[in-house]
Amino acid sequence: MRYAVLGTGTVGETIAGKLVELGNEVMMGSRRAGNEKALAWAEAAGDGASEGSFEDAASFAEALVNATAGVASLDALAAAGAGNLAGKVVIDLANPLQPDSGMPPELAFCNTESLGERIQDAFPDARVVKTLNTINAAVMVDPASVPDSHNVFVSGNDAAAKSQVTELLESFGWPADAVIDLGDISTARGAEMYLALWLRLMLAGGSARFNIRVVRGD
Amino acid sequence: MRYAVLGTGTVGETIAGKLVELGNEVMMGSRRAGNEKALAWAEAAGDGASEGSFEDAASFAEALVNATAGVASLDALAAAGAGNLAGKVVIDLANPLQPDSGMPPELAFCNTESLGERIQDAFPDARVVKTLNTINAAVMVDPASVPDSHNVFVSGNDAAAKSQVTELLESFGWPADAVIDLGDISTARGAEMYLALWLRLMLAGGSARFNIRVVRGD
Repeated sequence: MRYAVLGTGTVGETIAGKLVELGNEVMMGSRRAGNEKALAWAEAAGDGASEGSFEDAASFAEALVNATAGVASLDALAAAGAGNLAGKVVIDLANPLQPDSGMPPELAFCNTESLGERIQDAFPDARVVKTLNTINAAVMVDPASVPDSHNVFVSGNDAAAKSQVTELLESFGWPADAVIDLGDISTARGAEMYLALWLRLMLAGGSARFNIRVVRGD
Repeated sequence: MRYAVLGTGTVGETIAGKLVELGNEVMMGSRRAGNEKALAWAEAAGDGASEGSFEDAASFAEALVNATAGVASLDALAAAGAGNLAGKVVIDLANPLQPDSGMPPELAFCNTESLGERIQDAFPDARVVKTLNTINAAVMVDPASVPDSHNVFVSGNDAAAKSQVTELLESFGWPADAVIDLGDISTARGAEMYLALWLRLMLAGGSARFNIRVVRGD
């Protein structure tokens, strides 16, 4: 598959690296082609790895991963071009953390809306799936680094897109039964608001290498 | 111990019943003494159970449980009387769900504030501990009804109050190591915002009888 990974931060690098490792062709997208971090990543990742502008990457790709900062994601996707998103799966990993809001950061918006919904609303022809935003980057692509079973969520309006993303998650090492379908894209509100708890669990435990398991009674 | 349980809903009834079962004296408080549901509860619960106004209950109690609707909690506690809360542990179980906001409901406020903080701010001499708001009433007092180990959170500014609440949770059946101290009362934001995910997990799974377990790597 040809993937665009938008964003050059830790999440972008980690996902892009895993996608290359799995045999995909991956273009890392950033504001301008030639971004230093993207160039360094592409060189280190080797065969199958390249970099370009958001638009270059989106035009190249069959599916996209949004790993930009949540408050910058709509601009990045607009730069990628609505036409380049149309009909494609857009995997949204971002959290709309409010810059400069301290530690733990606040969300820039939540409760009556979510980033996942904003993206789906702005790009109605994209097939948006929110996932993995509840999990630290290292654990996203190495779920076995946390013991026992634990869960990852998917939210989206397109069932086929969610199936495709679930298969991708399985290729990352997530057992199929670890993937919980929360429902349509509006359920991204739940996954994004959980960040407020995730941040405090991270601070209380002193590590981001954790996740939650949903345990159900009868 | 003499407890006041403010609120006559399912959570109030469940907690009040458990507290009586454990040998405590419990007065259920409501807007006016003689509330029908409170009378019925007190009669059914038998020895150790009584009912009265919010003020009656708070004045009677050594410790209080806030099980009122989140958007009504500040008014209920004001009716209970600041002087009757001073120096006492106030266990806040409520979630500020916005009435008439549909299913899943929205929160009336979150992100930059929380009900736990609002209560502590309004009653600075109370020793507020947020806990159990992330769990269905039946599971609160019967954690073994959900398999495996799973967690409950405490948030509060007063370490001794959190220890006292942790002991109460243990008497409800929670293992000591299931209780995660998130930090000061501002961490109630995390526990309250998790409701947005809890509600969607409840809807996706078709049952409220579940909880989460925090699983940590090295």
